[in-house]
Amino acid sequence: MYKLVLIRHGQSEWNLKNLFTGWTDVDLTEKGIEEAKNGGKVLKEEGYTFDVAYTSVLKRAIRTLNFVLEEMDLNWIPVHKTWRLNEKSYGALQGLNKAETAEKYGEDQVLQWRRSYDVRPPMIEESDERHPKFDNRYKDLKEENKTAGESLKDTYDRMLPYWHEEIAPTIKDGKNVVIVAHGNSLRSLVQFLDDMSEEAILKLNIPTGVPLVYELDEDLKPIKHYYLGDQDAIQAAISGVANQGKSK
Amino acid sequence: MYKLVLIRHGQSEWNLKNLFTGWTDVDLTEKGIEEAKNGGKVLKEEGYTFDVAYTSVLKRAIRTLNFVLEEMDLNWIPVHKTWRLNEKSYGALQGLNKAETAEKYGEDQVLQWRRSYDVRPPMIEESDERHPKFDNRYKDLKEENKTAGESLKDTYDRMLPYWHEEIAPTIKDGKNVVIVAHGNSLRSLVQFLDDMSEEAILKLNIPTGVPLVYELDEDLKPIKHYYLGDQDAIQAAISGVANQGKSK
Repeated sequence: MYKLVLIRHGQSEWNLKNLFTGWTDVDLTEKGIEEAKNGGKVLKEEGYTFDVAYTSVLKRAIRTLNFVLEEMDLNWIPVHKTWRLNEKSYGALQGLNKAETAEKYGEDQVLQWRRSYDVRPPMIEESDERHPKFDNRYKDLKEENKTAGESLKDTYDRMLPYWHEEIAPTIKDGKNVVIVAHGNSLRSLVQFLDDMSEEAILKLNIPTGVPLVYELDEDLKPIKHYYLGDQDAIQAAISGVANQGKSK
Repeated sequence: MYKLVLIRHGQSEWNLKNLFTGWTDVDLTEKGIEEAKNGGKVLKEEGYTFDVAYTSVLKRAIRTLNFVLEEMDLNWIPVHKTWRLNEKSYGALQGLNKAETAEKYGEDQVLQWRRSYDVRPPMIEESDERHPKFDNRYKDLKEENKTAGESLKDTYDRMLPYWHEEIAPTIKDGKNVVIVAHGNSLRSLVQFLDDMSEEAILKLNIPTGVPLVYELDEDLKPIKHYYLGDQDAIQAAISGVANQGKSK
């Protein structure tokens, strides 16, 4: 039996301002830093350890991982950073206020953009400085992977190869793995692991900074999963995420 | 022409207490964190950027690197951590006060242990919990590499293969490289790059947190090198390191 730990990054500056973030490289807030440290403390208290870590190329995830590893005294483990674990790109919505966008387009449209499975947001223009082609960290990506906006299906499709080619073999090799990523890249992974329907995954809300443990059988099929920490606080955090799309 | 940047980690808790540190995994002090951030700020101001970073498996170097990368907004670059860039192991001297050791053994003996080229310190006993065989981060090392104490020559001999096999090819591939490591692993690298005598390398003191730039020709032979930042402050820092071995 294997154990895999997933952690969604702590609160970011744009989570706090209720803006669409996506591939925008915003930093953690003080609260987000505390959430990250708490995640590390809980893991340490519960006796967890890791041999290798995976994260995105976005600082809110990387810094969350750094704080977790510091709390666990595991700064020394290998860390692999990949764009394939990035948040879903919200395209031209990035930087817009979620509540304002809801007022403008209607809550249904926003909820569809945020939570529909295969509807893409409005794309970032090629000339827009927010386009990944202007960002050095993506310079080695194929043009087709420099996305101007993704549906959750797109996120799933670019995340999953990394799971199959890099992460799954590492787990089967007996390594204790932690993945620190984003709401939608983790949702995509959970959808795959638990073989969830498109409808079901759209309703799943993963709280920030809380270790989510998957116990996996020898074929990496989930036996069970659970969050580590204060269960009441976790339920409150899950509800908080679900309410972000409301206009008021 | 290539540029390579070397940074010695910021002040550690045991630097402050004047204890032999070696492979002991002590943390940075507040001053050390400031030194690291300042190193990152200077690099950013001077227009430097990096594609890849190398560091040891010791947290004072890893955290220094993390602070440098945060200041430069480069959290996303790949970071490779290796025991081959660790500080020289001071063996059984680790944890002893340098001034006290100087009083006990004499300043000459301490200076020889700290600064002789091929004299090893007293070894850590096999049963001593400080031995690397009890430390999880070294579990995949060959037994012969789980050192109980090193001379500077030993440090040189285990550092250099990593330069030839990993770092040098990356530089020749056109990547901008930063190495954040330790007084003696960096001294070994400088000895190799500048083809310095054993006598000369023993007198070289690299200040903490100050970016040391090497300009290299196409064969990675140094054209020149220089420190970035306030040159008077750098000279004062170099003198500070040189005086650590004095008993009072």
